[in-house]
Amino acid sequence: MAPPVSGLRELRSRRGEMRSRVELLLMETQARVCRALAQLDGAAAFSVDSWERQEGGGGISCVLQDGDIFEKAGVNVSVVFGHLSEEAAQQMRSRGKTLKTKDGKLPFCAMGVSSVIHPKNPHVPTIHFNYRYFEIEQADGSKQWWFGGGTDLTPTYLNQEDAVHFHKTLKEACDKHGPELYPKYKKWCDNYFYIKHRGERRGIGGIFFDDLDSPSKEEVFQFVQSCAEAIVPCYIPIVKKHCHDSFSPEEKLWQQLRRGRYVEFNLVYDRGTKFGLATPGSRIESILMSLPLTARWEYMHSPPENSKEAEILEVLRNPKNWVH
Amino acid sequence: MAPPVSGLRELRSRRGEMRSRVELLLMETQARVCRALAQLDGAAAFSVDSWERQEGGGGISCVLQDGDIFEKAGVNVSVVFGHLSEEAAQQMRSRGKTLKTKDGKLPFCAMGVSSVIHPKNPHVPTIHFNYRYFEIEQADGSKQWWFGGGTDLTPTYLNQEDAVHFHKTLKEACDKHGPELYPKYKKWCDNYFYIKHRGERRGIGGIFFDDLDSPSKEEVFQFVQSCAEAIVPCYIPIVKKHCHDSFSPEEKLWQQLRRGRYVEFNLVYDRGTKFGLATPGSRIESILMSLPLTARWEYMHSPPENSKEAEILEVLRNPKNWVH
Repeated sequence: MAPPVSGLRELRSRRGEMRSRVELLLMETQARVCRALAQLDGAAAFSVDSWERQEGGGGISCVLQDGDIFEKAGVNVSVVFGHLSEEAAQQMRSRGKTLKTKDGKLPFCAMGVSSVIHPKNPHVPTIHFNYRYFEIEQADGSKQWWFGGGTDLTPTYLNQEDAVHFHKTLKEACDKHGPELYPKYKKWCDNYFYIKHRGERRGIGGIFFDDLDSPSKEEVFQFVQSCAEAIVPCYIPIVKKHCHDSFSPEEKLWQQLRRGRYVEFNLVYDRGTKFGLATPGSRIESILMSLPLTARWEYMHSPPENSKEAEILEVLRNPKNWVH
Repeated sequence: MAPPVSGLRELRSRRGEMRSRVELLLMETQARVCRALAQLDGAAAFSVDSWERQEGGGGISCVLQDGDIFEKAGVNVSVVFGHLSEEAAQQMRSRGKTLKTKDGKLPFCAMGVSSVIHPKNPHVPTIHFNYRYFEIEQADGSKQWWFGGGTDLTPTYLNQEDAVHFHKTLKEACDKHGPELYPKYKKWCDNYFYIKHRGERRGIGGIFFDDLDSPSKEEVFQFVQSCAEAIVPCYIPIVKKHCHDSFSPEEKLWQQLRRGRYVEFNLVYDRGTKFGLATPGSRIESILMSLPLTARWEYMHSPPENSKEAEILEVLRNPKNWVH
């Protein structure tokens, strides 16, 4: 696999110091995760595409499809700049931000790393993570900035030990920066990844936050860095543990039905996907790389009581606390 | 298969004469289509569920899954009444309707038949149809009413002869009621079933109309009846012609990718689906019965030039006139 970092050189340019540091973190995260996946899945070939956005910016998408262990895995870095549309600015405002436009224009810069990894084996959960940084220049030349992000897990079947390991690793990353962070962002995650029409969460959660702009840029950056560094240790041990587990056709089928719910969340509710699909000039293939290779919808499917399928549904309907 | 008509008896009640006539038409349409499908697919067992909506009304869903010919086929009738939410009333207004509320309330009645039929064989196209009637009572006791509906075809591969047969049958149904109707509703259909982020239509179209309330209730009803009666003759001959065609694994794969686009349209753009998912108390399983049994998303899939896959894509990007 070609190191995805090299191609991003042209994206680093005459920008603020924090922008450069965030970019570096995003690229390191992409490289680290891709390397871990490639080490696990010998059959996997990443397709690496760098792309430019006409309106300003570009990115690098690393996608693996139909490997031995991973059905579909994508890790995408993008750095986008230009002017915020009136509609997009309105959305920011509705999130409580006051933005002063310069002649109706809002120069902005957005950068992020995002990834969804769908394994083949139904005993290996799907992971999603996304870390992003936003800067907006206001009329008076002052800048608003914030970070957002999160990491969350979507298992087909519940494995208590894995759930605890995943949440514990994220909690430890958060705890370095304050004991209040993990409980707050764990709850935010449960609320965000909610498939309202099903009354279910997409998975067993993790952490999620947005609009993070205090106590200071430096401190928020350090926090985001800790979260990004926790991705490999929270997930890869779970993959290693289960990627050779045997499974039945019925277990594969249940996985496919859960993949259907994943599609429902991403296309109906996910703010990033909706924003991307509605943004002119955005790269559709990178946005929809989050969709699974295959998914299934059965009419009125309902697992039998006391089954392993009912066990995970119960947790998706009533989120649990995995670490205290 | 149990005759779906019988269970709807309790839904017919003390309502206006047009409501009864429309209900009867919807039920007849459901029965006629289900009978035609059952006659073709010996292995198919319909599951027939009648359901009630707490807020008022109910419906009957007939769903067939994993038959010999049909992968998934659903035909749903629903009759819903109650009061329109402020949000829903706003949506009507944004469509150019002026509605005078009674103490902020808008009693309404909505009834419709809707169906999506996904066959197994990639040489048999998917069909969708939906015919509906809406009544709203205004503050002064006067009623607004309108009809909406349409029938459209989504082939995996283009078959010119089938496309012409499908459109010709719909055109003949329209022409009985005015020569201007087919061209107008054909164009509306092409515009409606547009997957904007892909720059593609969902299929090769058909007819689509909404807010139809002139020249008179009787004339619009007659028109809708003609459309509903055209469903079986426009589609069933195509199924019979191709349901035993041989196909390759590559053709099945292309069908699965097109099913992915079907899911994208339905979850991201379809007004009926979005309205349904956002309406409290609506029956999710009936709304999402339109989703295919299975679907697939490959990163950066692009068919080779001059292939049969490229041929249908070309038509989805640039809709054609099939009859003149």
